[in-house]
Amino acid sequence: MGVGYICCTSSSSSSSTLLTYKPKQLFNLANPTTTSITSQSHFKTSTNFYSISCTSSSFLPLKCGAGIDIRETQDENTSNPMMGIHNINPDLLQQMVYDALVWCSLHGLVVGDKSVQNSGIVPGVGMKHAPFALLPTSFPQTQWQQACDLMCIFNELIDRVSLDGNFLQDTLSRTKRVDVFTSRLLDIHSMMLEIKKKEEIRLGLHRSDYMLDDQTKDLLQIELNTISSSFPGLGCLVSELHSNLLNHYGDHVGLQSGRVPGNTALTGYADALGQAWKEYNDPRAVVMVVVQTEERNMYDQHWLSTVLKERHAVTTIRKTLAEVDSEGELLPDGTLLVGGQKVAVIYFRAGYAPSDYPSESEWEARLLMECSSAVKCPSISYHLAGTKKIQQELAKPNVLERFLENKDEIAKLRKCFAGLWSLDDPHAVRDALERPELYVLKPQREGGEC
Amino acid sequence: MGVGYICCTSSSSSSSTLLTYKPKQLFNLANPTTTSITSQSHFKTSTNFYSISCTSSSFLPLKCGAGIDIRETQDENTSNPMMGIHNINPDLLQQMVYDALVWCSLHGLVVGDKSVQNSGIVPGVGMKHAPFALLPTSFPQTQWQQACDLMCIFNELIDRVSLDGNFLQDTLSRTKRVDVFTSRLLDIHSMMLEIKKKEEIRLGLHRSDYMLDDQTKDLLQIELNTISSSFPGLGCLVSELHSNLLNHYGDHVGLQSGRVPGNTALTGYADALGQAWKEYNDPRAVVMVVVQTEERNMYDQHWLSTVLKERHAVTTIRKTLAEVDSEGELLPDGTLLVGGQKVAVIYFRAGYAPSDYPSESEWEARLLMECSSAVKCPSISYHLAGTKKIQQELAKPNVLERFLENKDEIAKLRKCFAGLWSLDDPHAVRDALERPELYVLKPQREGGEC
Repeated sequence: MGVGYICCTSSSSSSSTLLTYKPKQLFNLANPTTTSITSQSHFKTSTNFYSISCTSSSFLPLKCGAGIDIRETQDENTSNPMMGIHNINPDLLQQMVYDALVWCSLHGLVVGDKSVQNSGIVPGVGMKHAPFALLPTSFPQTQWQQACDLMCIFNELIDRVSLDGNFLQDTLSRTKRVDVFTSRLLDIHSMMLEIKKKEEIRLGLHRSDYMLDDQTKDLLQIELNTISSSFPGLGCLVSELHSNLLNHYGDHVGLQSGRVPGNTALTGYADALGQAWKEYNDPRAVVMVVVQTEERNMYDQHWLSTVLKERHAVTTIRKTLAEVDSEGELLPDGTLLVGGQKVAVIYFRAGYAPSDYPSESEWEARLLMECSSAVKCPSISYHLAGTKKIQQELAKPNVLERFLENKDEIAKLRKCFAGLWSLDDPHAVRDALERPELYVLKPQREGGEC
Repeated sequence: MGVGYICCTSSSSSSSTLLTYKPKQLFNLANPTTTSITSQSHFKTSTNFYSISCTSSSFLPLKCGAGIDIRETQDENTSNPMMGIHNINPDLLQQMVYDALVWCSLHGLVVGDKSVQNSGIVPGVGMKHAPFALLPTSFPQTQWQQACDLMCIFNELIDRVSLDGNFLQDTLSRTKRVDVFTSRLLDIHSMMLEIKKKEEIRLGLHRSDYMLDDQTKDLLQIELNTISSSFPGLGCLVSELHSNLLNHYGDHVGLQSGRVPGNTALTGYADALGQAWKEYNDPRAVVMVVVQTEERNMYDQHWLSTVLKERHAVTTIRKTLAEVDSEGELLPDGTLLVGGQKVAVIYFRAGYAPSDYPSESEWEARLLMECSSAVKCPSISYHLAGTKKIQQELAKPNVLERFLENKDEIAKLRKCFAGLWSLDDPHAVRDALERPELYVLKPQREGGEC
């Protein structure tokens, strides 16, 4: 399956204070937009599109003219209108790379450099440009619009699935026996079911990842992330970078700047967090970003906090799970205090992987937060609803119908489901071993493994 | 002499195609504005103002709470309205530092980190936040306005001095005998005099540095830079950083964001370069930035090139003196080609120090450029007019009158002249040895030695 790859992001929220669930109206969001940032792994099965991935190490020094990672078409008859990379004058290509690197540096399209101490702890030290594709990848407009349209339906689906506690528990019961991590999440979920915990304000910041089937050109969903969906900040910047480069070099590479889709993921995320904060209705409360101890992608997160502050005057604090455990306190009315500050919204940029829970402290922190009245992004239910096993279950016949009524919407979702097979299925395993080029092996959990 | 320190920047240009010399009208410049970026050395004699200088190394890790370089008043009866640094809550101070570091990272207030290889060669690698003062320094409005008003008079003065070749040669004749570097510059200047080289379009990007006398509060000029005046880009960003911080924390530290003066140095520089390029009148020609082989302050320069491109659609190229020597070519009509590209404007961010000329190649490049019809920023005459020896000569009685007619303007200039004494003056030397706190020893040449 030779495929392209796009990611759609959106924010959703429902609240008991709202009569109708209208995320687009509520948050004044444009259609979900593509985060164009790419890493090489995203393109590992690409056969149809050009992509130049730049990393610090791979093209130094600039003048050597080598080391730029160029991926070219394997299909000479491709209908892709983009110029072949070999048709670009090498001097021009080098100039474009240089300009792109300057642009990244001046506009905050940066990450921490793991070779520099503290680059994942203290901002402003050990920075380097984020890895990026030099040019945007062509993508058919119809499938693009399809992906945008799907986002609201998926948001609705996730919300409804999250409210069906038994479905989550039943579907994940076998996973629970073999996966300690999912088991711990399910334990917390069970406790919430037992105490009949209600989430009055629910916020999801989701990213749905797709690939385009090489043969049929069908848009196929790879996964839907419901926790710690990253790159709203850097993704928007990559769109700006591409627009800027094509403004200057578009004629030389046969691409138009105006055809780069607008990307509103960052303001969309910020507006959604701002709306959840507003619904919580305490002007002194803060948004808490739950972070990893070291985070070299911190600038993506800082962009979000910055825009949240600018657009909604909301303050964010950053805490690790261990800090939440040591500084957190639950008041009798459910109010969460961390370091003495009242928390309105908990935004997880950690907590999705077993390594985020090195001791019981972190699990206690997760439970403490789940018990609170703060808006969780995501709640334990939203988190579980995003697992591959649930995705697999939803793809089975008649399961979507359990959660959605609109037949047209159900058909739209089903159309983008790629086949998912459990390793319990001996036929699928045998076929995958025989024709491995047709399959992708995916782990159950999150964490940039795609 | 306890003094504060400000820098005023301006751009000036005169052209034979213009009847009147009106830089403000010509370039639509606001008054010259302050580049607020500071380094610790700028404040080494400060006794009256608060300043917190942040460097990467000095406050890591953030949480240790130590290592922030705090300079406090030595005069408890100061009338400075700024809160004492000890009155700021340490947690708040730490939060402000953190926010400032994030702001720098996201907004391109960065420099290359000398501990990282290639950080002065390739953009986008080995970046760290630029050193900055956390809070702006209070400065009296009258003297501020005085500095702004002085800039146009100084620009006029420099231009007129530059046109008096004999004055430059005569005044620097003794320096020529003891300083090989100045001697080489004077040789080029002599050659231009001999061939009666005319600079039809003259562009100066100047920065006048001042300190405020602690006792009299007089504004005193330290030096006027006519070559490679840096920090139009990062300086403007520091102003924005201060405004942003005070928007959030102003009430806590007793400072108002609205009192941070606007800083238009970057657009002023870009507009001046754009105007010079336009006067040269060849749409295919470029602006050439003459750079050092390694330049960790490259992002300040990249900001200027970026804004020049955005506002005037002018392309810049970057060349070292050695590259100009190897790739440069002078056509019979005086046109300068470098790497095959016609150069309209040469903007020097190198060439001001002996170390920039490690071999004869670099001197040949300088001569080649001087012989061309490209606009030089600065020309050899402007460069020489900015030397300390000329500054010293201009401070003598009746010398300003040789270049300016307006008595009011002459009086304004003279009022800001600090005393300058040659080391040839035995009385001055003796007094300086006896009362060193009253003097600053300055080298003849440029290069951030202040």
